[in-house]
Amino acid sequence: MVSRELRVAAASPPIRVGEVAANLAASRSALTEAVDAGAQLIVLPELATSGYVFRDRGEARAAALTADDPRWSDLSTVLPEGVVAVVGFAEDGGDRLFTSAAVLTRTGIIGGYRKAHLWGEEARFFARGDAAGAVVATPIGRLGVALCYDNEFPEVPRRLALAGAEILALPVNWPRVPRPTGERPPETIQAMAAARSSRLATVIADRHGEERGVEWTGGTAIVDDDGWIAAAGVVAGDGIVVETLTLRHPDDKALPPYNDLFGDRRPELYR
Amino acid sequence: MVSRELRVAAASPPIRVGEVAANLAASRSALTEAVDAGAQLIVLPELATSGYVFRDRGEARAAALTADDPRWSDLSTVLPEGVVAVVGFAEDGGDRLFTSAAVLTRTGIIGGYRKAHLWGEEARFFARGDAAGAVVATPIGRLGVALCYDNEFPEVPRRLALAGAEILALPVNWPRVPRPTGERPPETIQAMAAARSSRLATVIADRHGEERGVEWTGGTAIVDDDGWIAAAGVVAGDGIVVETLTLRHPDDKALPPYNDLFGDRRPELYR
Repeated sequence: MVSRELRVAAASPPIRVGEVAANLAASRSALTEAVDAGAQLIVLPELATSGYVFRDRGEARAAALTADDPRWSDLSTVLPEGVVAVVGFAEDGGDRLFTSAAVLTRTGIIGGYRKAHLWGEEARFFARGDAAGAVVATPIGRLGVALCYDNEFPEVPRRLALAGAEILALPVNWPRVPRPTGERPPETIQAMAAARSSRLATVIADRHGEERGVEWTGGTAIVDDDGWIAAAGVVAGDGIVVETLTLRHPDDKALPPYNDLFGDRRPELYR
Repeated sequence: MVSRELRVAAASPPIRVGEVAANLAASRSALTEAVDAGAQLIVLPELATSGYVFRDRGEARAAALTADDPRWSDLSTVLPEGVVAVVGFAEDGGDRLFTSAAVLTRTGIIGGYRKAHLWGEEARFFARGDAAGAVVATPIGRLGVALCYDNEFPEVPRRLALAGAEILALPVNWPRVPRPTGERPPETIQAMAAARSSRLATVIADRHGEERGVEWTGGTAIVDDDGWIAAAGVVAGDGIVVETLTLRHPDDKALPPYNDLFGDRRPELYR
């Protein structure tokens, strides 16, 4: 089973709560920059088009987009053929709002995911989705998609890898939590462990700076399929991290000469 | 739900493959030292009584103990009332051998566990157990027990925590694997993530030095129930790490004010 190279980017554009037009413009700039850097998969943060710290449900609804909103073409049209972007957005789902991820190509939205595990006050604004992550067929392969707190449930990245995801796009909004001096963010450690356990490279796009008093972790990072940080460090500006990953075939979970990450599982004992 | 303090120790005594009497003596010394340091739970490495790098099955069998071997009293008798030790051993299970953990108190073995996930050449010597970790009722509470490679399957620590384990004893023999400069061992990162995901403090006892050309990781460490390293660093001698952990009640998985590590799970979506 052959490995392949995939050039991926995680971007943390400047996002302002409620300012959808400005956020679309900033997201478009970030996508353009990543495309110019040769990225084939580009991940933007959760709620990139809307911001996060809503005052009330009305503000959240005003910043929401439907999946067929014509403004998605602002983003999709900057993507060359074959390039895939994952963008977090507040989704207007009719009677309910969701915190969702749009999977975009040049032709528009080709898939989406509604977050299943809501954090903090999110349930004030958003309903829960009915799937724990998604696997979307895209031009760059079978793409796993999860959002933020989803990935702190080890069942989620595991499930996506078992379903054949070749890489995981993980838009997040990580409010900074306490951690010992010198330690990585705990969510990063969890993502590294999940990536290693299932050999699932993970592209994390986080916010940076602060929004209405919430300080962000700045955890934007690219994790390779052994669980190591291949690139990280976006903490300011509209910078992006870009890295060429070598991805092993999604069916290759072998640990030669005797072991296999998936073959050694004993699901009958996990109940 | 109240928290409580528990003083725990992880020890890495000098172990020599095949030399059961010497290993029992070294294990007894380590237990005594930990008891003197006030430990209520003491964890020794996997295969502490036998060593690991067997040349053949005969050597493994010669170093195996049954669960009712009288020599267990060499270890149990140094434990004061109420103190619990977890000791990895090669188990003579009649027609089959297992890499097992004995849960010991002053009265002898009160529980055990046979490793479910075998690493490397272990299957040459050992059969697989029929449970993915165990929860044993002990004087210090409901004790989770798993062995080495078991914990690299995120299902295992998760399952034990969901079954009410208050802390996880993890005897290991981690052969050193490549890792980027400055990084922790990958198995440590996985243990930290698992501990945080399920709020399950984890006491890891690893080997140190080398045995027949296998270099050990020296990953002995105590991980608190937030997933942070509370104490670590045994790399030589018969040193132990000892730490007083504050353990939240095993039913307390709350992330105030809105979340709960277990209550937020959506197991119906994890199939």
